[in-house]
Amino acid sequence: MTDTTATAPVDVRTMANAVRFLAIDAVQKANSGHPGMPMGMADVATVLFTRFAKVDPTSPRWPDRDRFVLSAGHGSMLLYGLSYLLGYADTDIEQLQNFRQLGAKTAGHPEYGHVDFAETTTGPLGQGIANAVGMALAERMMAARFGDDVVDHYTWCIAGDGCLMEGISQEVISFAGHQKLGKLVVLWDDNRICIDGDTSKATSDDQMKRFEASQWHVQAVDGHDPEAVAAALEKAKADPRPSLIACRTVIGFGSPSLAGSEKTHGAPLGEAEIAATREALNWPHAPFEVPEDVLTAWRAAGTRGTEARRAWEAKMQAEPADKRDAFFDFVAGKLPLGWERGLDDYKKKCAEEQPKVATRKASQQCLEHIVPALPQIVGGSADLTHSNLTITKQMSAVEPGHYAGNYIHWGIREHGMGAMMNGIALHGGFIPYGGTFLVFTDYLRPALRMGAIMNQRVIYVGTHDSIGLGEDGPTHQPVEHLASLRAMPNVLVLRPCDPIETAECWQIALHTDDAPSVLALSRQNLPTVRQYTAENLSARGAYVLSEPEDGGRDVTLIATGSEVQLALTAQVMLANVGVKAAVVSMPCWELFDQQPTDYRNQVLGKGVLRVAVEAASTFGWEKYVGLEGAVVGMRQFGASGPAEELYEFFDITAKSVADVVLTRLKR
Amino acid sequence: MTDTTATAPVDVRTMANAVRFLAIDAVQKANSGHPGMPMGMADVATVLFTRFAKVDPTSPRWPDRDRFVLSAGHGSMLLYGLSYLLGYADTDIEQLQNFRQLGAKTAGHPEYGHVDFAETTTGPLGQGIANAVGMALAERMMAARFGDDVVDHYTWCIAGDGCLMEGISQEVISFAGHQKLGKLVVLWDDNRICIDGDTSKATSDDQMKRFEASQWHVQAVDGHDPEAVAAALEKAKADPRPSLIACRTVIGFGSPSLAGSEKTHGAPLGEAEIAATREALNWPHAPFEVPEDVLTAWRAAGTRGTEARRAWEAKMQAEPADKRDAFFDFVAGKLPLGWERGLDDYKKKCAEEQPKVATRKASQQCLEHIVPALPQIVGGSADLTHSNLTITKQMSAVEPGHYAGNYIHWGIREHGMGAMMNGIALHGGFIPYGGTFLVFTDYLRPALRMGAIMNQRVIYVGTHDSIGLGEDGPTHQPVEHLASLRAMPNVLVLRPCDPIETAECWQIALHTDDAPSVLALSRQNLPTVRQYTAENLSARGAYVLSEPEDGGRDVTLIATGSEVQLALTAQVMLANVGVKAAVVSMPCWELFDQQPTDYRNQVLGKGVLRVAVEAASTFGWEKYVGLEGAVVGMRQFGASGPAEELYEFFDITAKSVADVVLTRLKR
Repeated sequence: MTDTTATAPVDVRTMANAVRFLAIDAVQKANSGHPGMPMGMADVATVLFTRFAKVDPTSPRWPDRDRFVLSAGHGSMLLYGLSYLLGYADTDIEQLQNFRQLGAKTAGHPEYGHVDFAETTTGPLGQGIANAVGMALAERMMAARFGDDVVDHYTWCIAGDGCLMEGISQEVISFAGHQKLGKLVVLWDDNRICIDGDTSKATSDDQMKRFEASQWHVQAVDGHDPEAVAAALEKAKADPRPSLIACRTVIGFGSPSLAGSEKTHGAPLGEAEIAATREALNWPHAPFEVPEDVLTAWRAAGTRGTEARRAWEAKMQAEPADKRDAFFDFVAGKLPLGWERGLDDYKKKCAEEQPKVATRKASQQCLEHIVPALPQIVGGSADLTHSNLTITKQMSAVEPGHYAGNYIHWGIREHGMGAMMNGIALHGGFIPYGGTFLVFTDYLRPALRMGAIMNQRVIYVGTHDSIGLGEDGPTHQPVEHLASLRAMPNVLVLRPCDPIETAECWQIALHTDDAPSVLALSRQNLPTVRQYTAENLSARGAYVLSEPEDGGRDVTLIATGSEVQLALTAQVMLANVGVKAAVVSMPCWELFDQQPTDYRNQVLGKGVLRVAVEAASTFGWEKYVGLEGAVVGMRQFGASGPAEELYEFFDITAKSVADVVLTRLKR
Repeated sequence: MTDTTATAPVDVRTMANAVRFLAIDAVQKANSGHPGMPMGMADVATVLFTRFAKVDPTSPRWPDRDRFVLSAGHGSMLLYGLSYLLGYADTDIEQLQNFRQLGAKTAGHPEYGHVDFAETTTGPLGQGIANAVGMALAERMMAARFGDDVVDHYTWCIAGDGCLMEGISQEVISFAGHQKLGKLVVLWDDNRICIDGDTSKATSDDQMKRFEASQWHVQAVDGHDPEAVAAALEKAKADPRPSLIACRTVIGFGSPSLAGSEKTHGAPLGEAEIAATREALNWPHAPFEVPEDVLTAWRAAGTRGTEARRAWEAKMQAEPADKRDAFFDFVAGKLPLGWERGLDDYKKKCAEEQPKVATRKASQQCLEHIVPALPQIVGGSADLTHSNLTITKQMSAVEPGHYAGNYIHWGIREHGMGAMMNGIALHGGFIPYGGTFLVFTDYLRPALRMGAIMNQRVIYVGTHDSIGLGEDGPTHQPVEHLASLRAMPNVLVLRPCDPIETAECWQIALHTDDAPSVLALSRQNLPTVRQYTAENLSARGAYVLSEPEDGGRDVTLIATGSEVQLALTAQVMLANVGVKAAVVSMPCWELFDQQPTDYRNQVLGKGVLRVAVEAASTFGWEKYVGLEGAVVGMRQFGASGPAEELYEFFDITAKSVADVVLTRLKR
């Protein structure tokens, strides 16, 4: 890579001032936003993007580009300003002028899918640095598969005090240090200011020591000294450990009255102060005006990446066609033809043998077919491998310095796991999954939400999905979790009732490339209740599993997962007293809600009494059963005791389902 | 405190073996549980409770007792064993024999309110250490108010690798170090084993260095050398910083084949291995049998605390009666007579002046009345003080070494904030509140759940409660949060519509001493729509805010918070076309659901079309509107743009409410 700035006529500070004033003026025009951080980090970002980062504005998604994550997402104008200056076509000056306006690509926080330069959506603090760790891991895992000549890029992350105070940062700093992710560089905006004022109001942490404790390479520099920053970046690249560079900066740098104050963090500077800042920084240009020499210098910096991309493409052309095709198929997330064959056989076998098996175990049996068929799969567990049953015989661990494996020991770090999986998915190439107890999806919820917002294929394996967990008690028994996950937009919550539905749910999760999925799986054994069908019935969200014997229908019993067997038993009990019940298995609300009205009416039974049963909060079920129907479920937290006793204690039994039906029918 | 073990005839190892075998045998009998940790930490715990911890089994809730938190809650048999051995009356041998059985006090994980010795419910990793930090802060804050002669106790916490890997631990370690909580001692069970095997599979952290980076005093000892542990505890007490003692232990200590293996973590050892362990540790006694001399030695240790408590009581008797009464009233959480007077005046003033004000601002105005009236109040924000508006003119910061203040800078640590607030509430005396954006309640959800399970009065101030947040965009706009919070048992979700309801909601939250509350407050200004009433109408959960002008009712419009004004406008629009609409304000679902059926029918209108409007996920509203009704709300994530445009864009307007009503009525 040639250092083009060395011969450029425009100095770093002037180039950085272009970034500063785009931020200042866009925030002022929007009358909303965060100017302080872009003003403080403009010098660092200028060094990074004119001399180090390998990105090509003319081919934003080129696979071997460096990844840049603005973890401190409130400083979004830094990213948009850079995007415009470097020459990304989708970020023109009108976009900057429409910062934070409805419909603009330049949203308040950087959003994945809006501007090409945003590799991830950031804003909720700590998420970005975790994404960056996931991306850096994906880079190494991909290099281990396709070679360092094909995959060789850095992940650069700008993080603020907020990111480092959030607990999730510790989880991923620890993970990155352990895994020796040497091509990850975090530039910490060490401005010592948070929203409430000086960071010393809330923390006395020695961040350098903290990162060292997690086996990082650490350096501290004056963030307004370009050569010092450049030297630190060189050293960071050379070190085999992940690197932290503490960049001592002044928030709102250049503002005569407000620099160094939290007042620059989240509000426009105001016309008078902006004028004074123009004066102070010798930037006489009108808002949104970048002088031609400055823009030219920036665009020249942008072409560095174009050259790198062309060289890489030439190298790829020289590769054997099959290797090249394999790489590009992988990057595109293409699932190999026929990958579902093993699962299909598994379903047939289960239909034949009718095993009694926990759906977490069935999930592992599915993975035994999926993992060898899909090279993209990388999975793991947050230290519950043999409870979540997330590992298969063929999997080997991803280890520090050795990334050819496909099993990831996430550690006891659910939140980090979720956000690192987002990073892996965003990087491209891999389909990540992660296991924990369903109840602990609460720990990773903010990351799941980001995956949903960003339409990422990330799969959560949530086992021990009800009071069926038993003795571990209420702290470990999910109650409200199905409802709270279903309430989140763009997440598929899949709760299969037997091994055949489990295979179907895995197929759905793997085919759904625009949303995260959560598999809710039982600890306890469940009977196989499904016949084999060529069609994936779970993909309809719900279907009639069992019609009453001689047609007609007095009641529809709707159940999910481990309670489908209860509905089937209740159906028999009711038949014995002359009541005709259909049993509907409903593994996925979200998919069912997408079905045509006719199908939904046919399944639920129009005008017929509906009773739902699920060993979870009843919250939300009125959507299907209405005010006339009933729900057999949980209305409080669980308790510690053997699972079967708990079902009795909380009155979630076939008999209580049948009783509720009879009571309602008598009304 | 006299060192009674010095003269005791039973050595520490033998006393520790009593703990070990109670754990081994109880887990075996339950055929479920975690023996490895109690076996590993028995020596440390024996030193702690025979020579250091100041607890009185005959008066378990004595205010100046030391607090003990078993953060590694899966090792619950350590706690139950100690409880029995020390002589707590509620933990008899039958309780140990019924470990993990339905209805027993000895639940799978220690549960607050079950056995007296459990100061908090633990199990979800990282929560306990955070509770401990909260307790240690409460101790200092209480000492600052009543004197170190009256309040002077330690907080001891046993934490495992899991607790230290969870991100929340970093948040609270950082907080405790910053606040110089010198009377907090964490005993880390450094056994280098997690569930998946050796911790080196997932982490390379230097924990000592990490704690040092957060300004802790750190020591490492052999956890099986009682004198070394005792010496470390002495040093920890003497140091003004919070202390970490890394206790190098062997998980499953004493088991000839399984010691040091993750196999002892979460499963019974099995009869054969138990017999071998009895042999190895020279413990020939039958299951649940503790030889008299050993039990006597333990009970003698228990009396240490009884003596301390008596001495403290004598000291309190010598205090002036008014100081004594003030202290005990405070500890009991008694709200002073007449504390609501200021709020009542505020409501009258608002009814008269009809201000247009954001409910977050109204909340601050309420706090201006509440804080001076309730000395128990301590509050703060997760670094969003001037957005959440959680501070008042009279409040001063709690600062390192100076704890007389009542405003806590929680830092950018939502999860830690929630769990520390649980600890403060559990400690007794204080009513904590904490602010963040409502969307970031996702970050603290696991702590909120613990507060709900433990029936703790902890108040969350969740501002910017909808797309009304505006430009910050979808990552900052709550959509599913109201639903997901309402789905959680034992949480009051309060969404007031104007300043008068805001005052009512604060009153509800403060009176509710057995559940956490979440206040959902608007960023944007809202008109005052309520009249003054002596009765707290919000306490009914919902009520008819506005009847149609000339009686009768064609439709009930149900709204919460910022959308109540839309319902009122829709009511007028509908009246103009001859449709009679009643408007129901429903600030709290949970309270409404507790009302008598008659009241609920009267409010909602039996058999009448019902339409709900809320700028949040529609999820769950069918409970009130049924299958025939409609919900105007969000069905996707939000977007970045000015708030008013977003309401139009997502079609949450008075006109769309009126249109939906007209469409439904025409059906």
